[in-house]
Amino acid sequence: MRRAPEMNVQEWLNTDHPIRQADLAGRVVVLYAFQMLCPGCVHHATPQIEKIQKKFADSDDVRVIGLHAVFEHHEVMTPEALRVYVHENRLSFPIGIDARDAGERIPKTMAAYDMQGTPTIILIDKNGFVRARIFGLADELDLGVAIGKLTAEPAGEQATGADLGADQPAANRGCSTS
Amino acid sequence: MRRAPEMNVQEWLNTDHPIRQADLAGRVVVLYAFQMLCPGCVHHATPQIEKIQKKFADSDDVRVIGLHAVFEHHEVMTPEALRVYVHENRLSFPIGIDARDAGERIPKTMAAYDMQGTPTIILIDKNGFVRARIFGLADELDLGVAIGKLTAEPAGEQATGADLGADQPAANRGCSTS
Amino acid sequence: MRRAPEMNVQEWLNTDHPIRQADLAGRVVVLYAFQMLCPGCVHHATPQIEKIQKKFADSDDVRVIGLHAVFEHHEVMTPEALRVYVHENRLSFPIGIDARDAGERIPKTMAAYDMQGTPTIILIDKNGFVRARIFGLADELDLGVAIGKLTAEPAGEQATGADLGADQPAANRGCSTS
Amino acid sequence: MRRAPEMNVQEWLNTDHPIRQADLAGRVVVLYAFQMLCPGCVHHATPQIEKIQKKFADSDDVRVIGLHAVFEHHEVMTPEALRVYVHENRLSFPIGIDARDAGERIPKTMAAYDMQGTPTIILIDKNGFVRARIFGLADELDLGVAIGKLTAEPAGEQATGADLGADQPAANRGCSTS
Repeated sequence: MRRAPEMNVQEWLNTDHPIRQADLAGRVVVLYAFQMLCPGCVHHATPQIEKIQKKFADSDDVRVIGLHAVFEHHEVMTPEALRVYVHENRLSFPIGIDARDAGERIPKTMAAYDMQGTPTIILIDKNGFVRARIFGLADELDLGVAIGKLTAEPAGEQATGADLGADQPAANRGCSTS
Repeated sequence: MRRAPEMNVQEWLNTDHPIRQADLAGRVVVLYAFQMLCPGCVHHATPQIEKIQKKFADSDDVRVIGLHAVFEHHEVMTPEALRVYVHENRLSFPIGIDARDAGERIPKTMAAYDMQGTPTIILIDKNGFVRARIFGLADELDLGVAIGKLTAEPAGEQATGADLGADQPAANRGCSTS
Repeated sequence: MRRAPEMNVQEWLNTDHPIRQADLAGRVVVLYAFQMLCPGCVHHATPQIEKIQKKFADSDDVRVIGLHAVFEHHEVMTPEALRVYVHENRLSFPIGIDARDAGERIPKTMAAYDMQGTPTIILIDKNGFVRARIFGLADELDLGVAIGKLTAEPAGEQATGADLGADQPAANRGCSTS
Repeated sequence: MRRAPEMNVQEWLNTDHPIRQADLAGRVVVLYAFQMLCPGCVHHATPQIEKIQKKFADSDDVRVIGLHAVFEHHEVMTPEALRVYVHENRLSFPIGIDARDAGERIPKTMAAYDMQGTPTIILIDKNGFVRARIFGLADELDLGVAIGKLTAEPAGEQATGADLGADQPAANRGCSTS
C-alpha cells in the first residue's frame, strides 16, 4: 500500500488547470496510462475508460484521468498527434502528457508508478492510496467490481483495504517497456 | 428498501439442499431470474451471470442463484428441458425452479419480487435487503460497480444504502409479463 | 461431388408447402442443420443464418432452409418446443423437422447428408450438387465468399467446381453425434 | 463501370516494388483506403482487411492493397507515423502512401477514384474494372459475398457484371472529405 505519487505532466488536454493529488482527495481515481499507437490501448482500454468516464460524469465519486505515457516512438506520438487522436476519438476526460527528461526513454510519472507498459490502469482510493495496478487488457466486470468497492469505502481514514487488481496474463498484455 | 422475500421453489438443480434467505446472511446475492427460451436471457444475461459465478466461485463474498421463472410456454419449458439446457450450457450455479399454482401464469417467487419479466437480476445486500432490480439487458460495468459496492458494505447493520439498479430502457428489455 | 439428397421431413414451419430439391433448381441453397438446445447453434450459427436470410430475402439467388436435426434429448426438443424457439427468436426462414425412425437416434436427412453434428451448414449449388459441408462454428467471411462464388456460377451445367467448405477445427465444433 | 485508375503513390510499405494495375490483371483486387487516425478505419475496417489478407494469403485469386489516403491532419499522419502504425498492428499487406500536390488537401489517387472519405473499400475485378466502392463501415458477410462473386467470374472478358457495393448509411460512415 503506497500513496499515489504526484503526476509529472508537461501539458494537459481537456482541462484548463493542472490536476494535483490534493484536488482528488475524497474521490476514487481511475488513472489510465496509454500510448496513442499501442493497439491494446486503442482497441480495448480507451473505449473501456471512455465508458467509465461517461458512467461517472455526473457523479462526484469517481474521476477518470488519462496519462499519455510514451516510452517508444516518441518522434511520432507527439503532443500534436495526441491532440488529433483525442479529437477524432472524442475523448472527454482530462489527459496529461507525461513529462520526460531529455535522453530518457521512460517518462517520469510512468517511472514513479513503476508501470510495466501500456495500457495500465491505476485505481487510487479516496485517501490517495494506490489500490490496483492493472497492466494489459482489463476485464470490464473486474474493473467495475474494484471501482464499486472503492466508492463504497469511507473517506478520511487510513486505508487498510487489500490490493484489488493484478497484472493480466501475458496473452492479454499490451506494449511492454521491457 | 425491503427485505428479500423467501424463494418458493419446486425443485433445485446444482445443489443438494434448498437455499433459504437465512443461509445467505452476510453475503451479497445475485439472484438471476430467467426463462430458458427467452432470447435476452440466453444470448445476454446467462453468459454474464455465469461469468459472475466464475469470478466469485472461490470467494465467500458473493452467491449467484438462478431462478427459472417461467410465465409463458410452460408446456415446453419443463424441468426436464431445463436440465438439458443447464447441462448443454454447463451452468454451475444453483438454480431453483419457481413454484406455480395450478392455473396461474406467473410463478410465486417472481410475483413475490414484483418482477416484470425476464431476464431480471436482483441484488440483495449482506443484511438481506433488495438493493437493485434490473429488468432487461444489464451492462457489465454497471453490474460490476453495484456488486463491488455491496461487497464493500459492512454486514450486521441496518441497511441504509441507496438503490443501485434500475430497469433498462425499453430497447433493452427482455420478455415481459405484460 | 454428389447430388444433394432429398430432405426427409416430418413437418415444415414457416412455409405452407414441403420443399423438394426440384423446387430449388437454379438457386444456391444454404441448408442449416441445428438443434434448438445446442449452444453453438443458438449463440453462433442461428444468428448468422438469419442474417444470410435477411440479406437474400428479396433475391432469387439464394434460399435459406433450416433443418431441425435432433439426435439427442429428443424428449425435450419436440416440435412444440421448436415452434416456441422459432417464435421467440423471430426466425423467418422455412424449417423442416428431420424425420426419424422409431428407435433411431440420428434422424434421416442428417444421416443421408453424413452430418457429424450440429451446427452444420451445407451449401448446394444451382445444379443441385453439395459443394460445402461445414460442421462447427463457421466464419462469416468464409461463408460469404463461398456463397458469393456459387451465386456467380452459371446454372444448367454439370458442376465442376471445387469443394468450398471444410469442417472446423475441434475447438470450434458444436454438438457431435459421436 | 470504369477501369480502375492507376494508383499515384509516393512511397510503398510492405513491398519492394511499386504495384501497377497491369501487375494485377487476372486477380480480384481489394483496395483499402484509410487514414491511420480515422476511428472507423482503426476499429472496424483495418482488422477486417487484415482478415481478408490472411484468408487469401496463399491464393492467387485475391490481392489486398492498402492506400494511406490522408486528407486531414497531414502534419501528424506522416510516413514515419504510418510505419509505426503498420509495425505495431502487424499489417502484412502492401500499402501505398497516396501522393499529394503541395497545397492540395485531397491526395491524388483518392481524387482519381472519387472517394468520399475513409474507410473506403474498392473492389476491382479480374479485368481491371471497378465493381464496388464502399465508403464507411462494411459488413463482413456483404464483403465476402462480393469478393466471392468476383473470384468466380472468368477473366479475359469484357466485364458486364453489376456493381456489387454501395456506400453505407450515414450512421456507419467514417471520416468524410466534405
